[in-house]
Amino acid sequence: MYSRRSLLLAGAAPAVLPSRAARRGYSWAEIERMIARGEVKGKLTRDDLPTPALLLDLDAFERNIARMAEHASKCGRRLRPHAKTHKCPEIARALMRAGAVGACTAKISEAEVLAEHGISGLLVTSAPVGRHRIERALRLARKAPDTVFCVDDAGNARQLSEAARQGRLTLNLAIELLVGQRSGIACGRPALELAQLIESLPNVRLAGLQAYSGPSSHVVGFEARRKHSIEAMTPAVETRRLIEKSGIECGWLSGGSTGTYNIDSEIDGVSELQPGSYIFMDIDYNIIGGRDGELYRDFENSLTVLATVYSKPSRDVAIVDAGLKSFATDRKVGPAPKDLPGVPYMWMGDEHGKLELARAPREVKLGDRIEFLVPHCDPTVNLYDELYCLRGDNVEAVWRIAARGRNQ
Amino acid sequence: MYSRRSLLLAGAAPAVLPSRAARRGYSWAEIERMIARGEVKGKLTRDDLPTPALLLDLDAFERNIARMAEHASKCGRRLRPHAKTHKCPEIARALMRAGAVGACTAKISEAEVLAEHGISGLLVTSAPVGRHRIERALRLARKAPDTVFCVDDAGNARQLSEAARQGRLTLNLAIELLVGQRSGIACGRPALELAQLIESLPNVRLAGLQAYSGPSSHVVGFEARRKHSIEAMTPAVETRRLIEKSGIECGWLSGGSTGTYNIDSEIDGVSELQPGSYIFMDIDYNIIGGRDGELYRDFENSLTVLATVYSKPSRDVAIVDAGLKSFATDRKVGPAPKDLPGVPYMWMGDEHGKLELARAPREVKLGDRIEFLVPHCDPTVNLYDELYCLRGDNVEAVWRIAARGRNQ
Repeated sequence: MYSRRSLLLAGAAPAVLPSRAARRGYSWAEIERMIARGEVKGKLTRDDLPTPALLLDLDAFERNIARMAEHASKCGRRLRPHAKTHKCPEIARALMRAGAVGACTAKISEAEVLAEHGISGLLVTSAPVGRHRIERALRLARKAPDTVFCVDDAGNARQLSEAARQGRLTLNLAIELLVGQRSGIACGRPALELAQLIESLPNVRLAGLQAYSGPSSHVVGFEARRKHSIEAMTPAVETRRLIEKSGIECGWLSGGSTGTYNIDSEIDGVSELQPGSYIFMDIDYNIIGGRDGELYRDFENSLTVLATVYSKPSRDVAIVDAGLKSFATDRKVGPAPKDLPGVPYMWMGDEHGKLELARAPREVKLGDRIEFLVPHCDPTVNLYDELYCLRGDNVEAVWRIAARGRNQ
Repeated sequence: MYSRRSLLLAGAAPAVLPSRAARRGYSWAEIERMIARGEVKGKLTRDDLPTPALLLDLDAFERNIARMAEHASKCGRRLRPHAKTHKCPEIARALMRAGAVGACTAKISEAEVLAEHGISGLLVTSAPVGRHRIERALRLARKAPDTVFCVDDAGNARQLSEAARQGRLTLNLAIELLVGQRSGIACGRPALELAQLIESLPNVRLAGLQAYSGPSSHVVGFEARRKHSIEAMTPAVETRRLIEKSGIECGWLSGGSTGTYNIDSEIDGVSELQPGSYIFMDIDYNIIGGRDGELYRDFENSLTVLATVYSKPSRDVAIVDAGLKSFATDRKVGPAPKDLPGVPYMWMGDEHGKLELARAPREVKLGDRIEFLVPHCDPTVNLYDELYCLRGDNVEAVWRIAARGRNQ
């Protein structure tokens, strides 16, 4: 079902041709300095980058952002993209310039980094459980007062209220509904009771409902995915009505993933979308199938990893310098070399990957640079400190993945 | 075959009991400051740490170090443990205090970090291929002249020689032999010819031979592993003899992993061991079987990840805050909760893991802290910036994983 060739119809940049910069020939010492200072525009090209390197194709990235923004706007849905995908303040800003109302974050530490960089409209999609996380939530709310924190437990809501009362501020809470198979409170009566409790407590207010159905996002086949997501989200929108019928205001219901953005946006009551991966895409999303075909192509693969062949033990084998410390390994699919259709990549340990070249469309030599589509974008990004932003072959910017590793 | 209960015979610290520090009750702001400054000893305990946190049991770690050092010394083998496991200058120093002759690193960038921290005796186990990596190799050799670089290609050796000649220094090279299934030059004649070439080139000298058989390391069952490793390493020691017979001095042959340290040390001609994982251990090594039983227990599991239950969607389910951004996911086994035998962990996305509590030996509540054995240590460590070093429940030190992400 997964046709690598068709994935790559758009063609790939000829990454191994010598570039202008390679001809100019910067030394490594010069390149290192430019990267550290971020002074790369008009100087560095793809060939200058140390590998493994995480690359962003800015043209594709910008088209992805515009496409989702247009969809949300057309459907009258707010867009709060999930920052756990990119962990990068520059990207959060780019999304807000395109109309996003803020950013979701998975954890408080991730939100802290974005707030430090001036991002507003934060929604922390996990609950601040425990004394220290509550203290962090208060500190963050003081810095970024429109931040919303998810809760799914009455005791936790009471503790947050009490802490906010002592801290003399008001916390915005969202109730996380159990629509996936992990965290959240059951839809219906239990969620209503939690809403009523929040309504009754001092120094907390109910901002909205969080309903992310992870299992729906990767259901293969558009119609099957549609059915799955509607089944998962229906109890959530019913819960919203139940709460509102009880007289409690409930500003929004946030849901949707890259896989279900155009499904959930048609569900009455889902007022906000929170997809993440669409800005980058990955093989695991490509293969879930789109509305119109076997490959999901609503968004383009803008994220790649650049590697170097650093051993050629035999004519038909190339060993690259990117292994399981350079790609996420949680999916069944592995990385795919972008301009070598039909060439399989095999994991060969932490720092090695093997390319079987028997069916390679061209010769691959020691020192060649190979660009790979990534299996799963979020945890791949979490392995890197920098994102090299390319316009064609030219490096336009180096963006710090400032919340990399901030998973607390 | 994998009995989690027997893995844990040594028992686990009662991580959820309130500690002295919890009773003293530091605020998060205080804890954050102490961690940033590294002023934790006598102050913080396990319960104060933000989760997910990477923990090191210092007692077990020190016993592991001593045990391997004693083995190497008894067998008359030098020990150069692989730093790709820990990426931590403090640990490299601890290993050298216990008798290691230096540290292996997988990449030049990793070696650069260790050299900056004063670690000597570096062996970079991949080849410096390409103009920029060669420049980095020269710079590193200038800073740390006893550094050895692996090569497996004649053209690369010539380029290194030419660069060293221009740079007016001498580079120490080791020939990487293809004993695993990834990088290296074929044993026998091809390796001999490369040795002769290096011997003939200016400004490079042959320091030794690198022969790491990755596939041998995890063969299940001690006898099967022994057979596998001897078969893999025999051509390497024969190559060493061939080179020496030709009149070329070949200082050492380095090999061995945590799985084969006591196998390769009995092979005549293997003069140096380069295991990495034994300092931490992981489930994937536990289950390969030891000399005396179904579990490999030569070394203790000193490395764990501490997580917090941050959702309890039902009585029999606990959701922890550590998912696939907090554990390596490349092995078939997942994390195992240290003091909850029989409780399976299920991956639930980037930041979530699910514990099925039906057979749990005790109640697990919202906010409880759970310590997990890790599936695979090296790529797990590469996800964290700090290693919290514990003596019992007390945090003695915070070690920076300074080469985290340095995979270039």
